[in-house]
Amino acid sequence: MPSDSGVIPFREIKDNRGSLISIEEGRNIPFTIKRVYYIFNTNGDKPRGFHAHRELKQVLICMSGSCRVRMEDANGKRDYYLDNPATALYIGPGVWREMYEFAPNTVIVVLASELYDENDYIRDYETFFRVFIKRTVVSGG
Amino acid sequence: MPSDSGVIPFREIKDNRGSLISIEEGRNIPFTIKRVYYIFNTNGDKPRGFHAHRELKQVLICMSGSCRVRMEDANGKRDYYLDNPATALYIGPGVWREMYEFAPNTVIVVLASELYDENDYIRDYETFFRVFIKRTVVSGG
Repeated sequence: MPSDSGVIPFREIKDNRGSLISIEEGRNIPFTIKRVYYIFNTNGDKPRGFHAHRELKQVLICMSGSCRVRMEDANGKRDYYLDNPATALYIGPGVWREMYEFAPNTVIVVLASELYDENDYIRDYETFFRVFIKRTVVSGG
Repeated sequence: MPSDSGVIPFREIKDNRGSLISIEEGRNIPFTIKRVYYIFNTNGDKPRGFHAHRELKQVLICMSGSCRVRMEDANGKRDYYLDNPATALYIGPGVWREMYEFAPNTVIVVLASELYDENDYIRDYETFFRVFIKRTVVSGG
């Protein structure tokens, strides 16, 4: 199970009927699933995200289509290309995320560790930078 | 929230970026989510399911493509056609289910009320009928 944000390769159970992936807390994701949400009818020209969370942990799974996810945290910036239901993205607290370049018919399912709480969102990049990046850089130097 | 097995229409939050649906226990599904699994790379010729559960509650969501689901319980038999992420299927305990006619690129996500437990499965139709149908018919008559 991941502790840092990044790719989670799930074990795919295959037979002649197709593929199945099972996700259970403590077994292959590092939290209890309190909420599931999904985005669909995505618009390739319209990026989403542009926020970080103070506490929330999430797993993003691209069930259909593809998209790119740009993440920034105290470890730096990374770009990911999601196009496979067997390769998910774990995003912990303190990560700025931007999702873009949605292919037609893209569906992203997100498993979240807490119920929806607007107070957990940081929607302003300057605030995110001050709280999660600058502090770390200063304390690290 | 449903108490009997059948369709759940979810509220879709739409804007110019696309659609979002959020699922939380007690708000729009009648259980805590302990497990999430999904099936993909489905084979149109290969039906799935053919079992009932003693206690497990599940919500099936067709995220991409389409399929048919045949259910049988003490209330009789029903057929459903799933092709929309905003219209899910709640399947309670004591329901025999068969899934078939998967369109290409179909992805089904299932939210489940319990961790995987082989002892909760009834994989033999005669046993299912004896436990959930015959008993009900006799006691109802």
